[in-house]
Amino acid sequence: MASVNPPRGMRDFLPADKARRERVLAVIRERYRAHGFDEIETPVVEEYARLHAGIGGDNEKLSFSVLKRGLDADAVRAAADDPAALADLGLRYDLTVPLARFYATHRAHLPSVFRSIQIAPVWRAERPQKGRYRQFVQCDIDIIGDATARAEAELMIASLDVLDALGLEGGTVRVNDRRALDAMLDVFGFAAAERPGVLITIDKLDKVGPTGVVAELRDRAVDPAAVDALAEFLDRPRNDDAAFGEAQIRVALPDGVPDEIVGHLVGLGDTVAAARGGDVPLRFDPFLVRGMGYYTGTIFELAHPSVDYSLGGGGRYDGMIGRFLGQDVPAVGFSIGFERLVDLLQDADDPGDRAIVLVHDRDVPLAELVSLKAALVADGARVRLEQRTKNLKALLERAASDGYAAFATVARGATVQTLEIKPLA
Amino acid sequence: MASVNPPRGMRDFLPADKARRERVLAVIRERYRAHGFDEIETPVVEEYARLHAGIGGDNEKLSFSVLKRGLDADAVRAAADDPAALADLGLRYDLTVPLARFYATHRAHLPSVFRSIQIAPVWRAERPQKGRYRQFVQCDIDIIGDATARAEAELMIASLDVLDALGLEGGTVRVNDRRALDAMLDVFGFAAAERPGVLITIDKLDKVGPTGVVAELRDRAVDPAAVDALAEFLDRPRNDDAAFGEAQIRVALPDGVPDEIVGHLVGLGDTVAAARGGDVPLRFDPFLVRGMGYYTGTIFELAHPSVDYSLGGGGRYDGMIGRFLGQDVPAVGFSIGFERLVDLLQDADDPGDRAIVLVHDRDVPLAELVSLKAALVADGARVRLEQRTKNLKALLERAASDGYAAFATVARGATVQTLEIKPLA
Repeated sequence: MASVNPPRGMRDFLPADKARRERVLAVIRERYRAHGFDEIETPVVEEYARLHAGIGGDNEKLSFSVLKRGLDADAVRAAADDPAALADLGLRYDLTVPLARFYATHRAHLPSVFRSIQIAPVWRAERPQKGRYRQFVQCDIDIIGDATARAEAELMIASLDVLDALGLEGGTVRVNDRRALDAMLDVFGFAAAERPGVLITIDKLDKVGPTGVVAELRDRAVDPAAVDALAEFLDRPRNDDAAFGEAQIRVALPDGVPDEIVGHLVGLGDTVAAARGGDVPLRFDPFLVRGMGYYTGTIFELAHPSVDYSLGGGGRYDGMIGRFLGQDVPAVGFSIGFERLVDLLQDADDPGDRAIVLVHDRDVPLAELVSLKAALVADGARVRLEQRTKNLKALLERAASDGYAAFATVARGATVQTLEIKPLA
Repeated sequence: MASVNPPRGMRDFLPADKARRERVLAVIRERYRAHGFDEIETPVVEEYARLHAGIGGDNEKLSFSVLKRGLDADAVRAAADDPAALADLGLRYDLTVPLARFYATHRAHLPSVFRSIQIAPVWRAERPQKGRYRQFVQCDIDIIGDATARAEAELMIASLDVLDALGLEGGTVRVNDRRALDAMLDVFGFAAAERPGVLITIDKLDKVGPTGVVAELRDRAVDPAAVDALAEFLDRPRNDDAAFGEAQIRVALPDGVPDEIVGHLVGLGDTVAAARGGDVPLRFDPFLVRGMGYYTGTIFELAHPSVDYSLGGGGRYDGMIGRFLGQDVPAVGFSIGFERLVDLLQDADDPGDRAIVLVHDRDVPLAELVSLKAALVADGARVRLEQRTKNLKALLERAASDGYAAFATVARGATVQTLEIKPLA
């Protein structure tokens, strides 16, 4: 007999958790819609070949594949040396590959600048560990068809508004640009072919510190003079909380990074500041890398003073949609860290003022019970019927933990007028 | 290269469709919650063995299986004669099997009468055809742990309220009871072993009529005297719109059906009537069968005068949860036909009064644009930025079809005060 647990690395959500998740999702959906984004949905599976076309990076290897239907023994044997031949579909591991496919399918029916919302689960066959799940929800917004910094600014402004609406005011956005990173590595003297590997090491800066980064690069025998130049630069004092102005960005970068890139960042800061009423919640981080290989310009992460991890991230990926379409299309996306956000909002439960438990004796006629309930529901309450048990205290405690705020006991002949509704402890 | 279409038999949802679906789901979720149901969620996959344990009926054969990870050539060859050995998980084909598994896992943390809501997609590898999809959303409510008619009544009352809230007043519930069906077949003289097959034929009554049902039974060589008795009974005039009272139920059944079953149905009718303020929206249908083999008592379908198909159905299935738990637990469930409901509400789009498109010239500075947008969003509007194109009319028509209701043109130096917001056609 199968186990009664959910499949390895996956979760069930009980009522209190599910209600919190839906409340947070409703806020995200409503705020992003207000900012002019439109929600779309794609099937949870995509064709196997599309999921393994090299765009998904390491996630491709973690994908769950769906067995072809109707395979006979010969077909299985023939596929022995190519398990990929057993599968025609796979569960998506991100929302970016499906978005690119969706855009290629439906472009003619979408506005020329398309602002999408996707709120949906993705699956990765990772080794289960604390805080990492094989099914989890991603909330992505993307803007396709806008090459200007308006797109980055709209993503940032909308996402900061989401944090505000969830009661997490004071969010900031750490910003960098892949072109600035590339120019910086060029200034230090790293050859173009070495730079992707060097970026992977620099991405570990938060974890291993400057010493660790330099040591790893020396181990990997990349150009020693370039490593020396990087080491010297990393030794300089940094101010991660500096304002997002031209002077501060200049001083955070080595000399020789082109003006055009600095100008792009400054313009982005001014734009976000204009929308946020003078407060510039952007911070320049010249060592922000972000993992995915497909980024081509601005990259950014959402931060909040209450936590030391990022609440989401994104960037510009102008090359990717074109691979599906055979034509260049600019694109920029941001993915909010929904699972982290929900954890952060653990205690922010809606008290549900008008949620009432009716505790009734066994002999109250059904018709009386359901009409009492119907009258309260029609009046705007949320109502649960419970037959009285010996342990009334336990019953009421469970109701309180399920989000109910009040209760009333119901005896034969009770009416809405005679009900005494009392708060639950 | 993979096709750009979604996988065979599955759908993408564009913004207008997705928004309508989410609006309908929000109403369903809110109304069911008001009636004391709590939403839960399970992973989209369950263990292969659980999905193929015989509870899912014909749907088991339609299930999509997930390939085991890390299979080598030898393992694949060894599985040649047993493709089931290639899969350890499968996509769920309904929400009932996962609910039974969930209840077995979490029973200790749930109220003694557990009222669940599940709103989630399911997958069936059916041959694609019009109106039938390989991924579709089910909206189920279930009550576990209540053996009384209170449970059936709560499901019916809540679901009628959902229809009302969606603007589909006047819904009715067609009701029957598996025990009444069994008693009726007993009265006609069908042997117990023949009855399941006879029910499958009677289930076709709406499609093939009484003559078709009788012909099929005669072909299948079931007891001819019993078929004669059934034929005679089917010949009697029926009144499908009769009130739901004891006299009407009695007259719709052959003599000899036990009082207890009639009494249960009458009590259920009185209970629903009490909640609905005297209007009894129930109709007795002695030939309602419903497909699944696991029903044990009341069965019912939701009907609406605007359509000739059912908008959902359900029934009591007291035996099933026990199979997972090794202990009898009463249960009754109802599944709203979400995809049909959405189709029915095609034209009920929210006009979105405060949805505004800002059409701007190319030379308006980004900071001006985003601060105009931010001010309108902060004031409660939903705002999309669009750069003016040569064909302004086409741009505005698309915005209108995306649910925008108003527009304003934005030139350099525009402010919220000087904006002229005009309705879209």
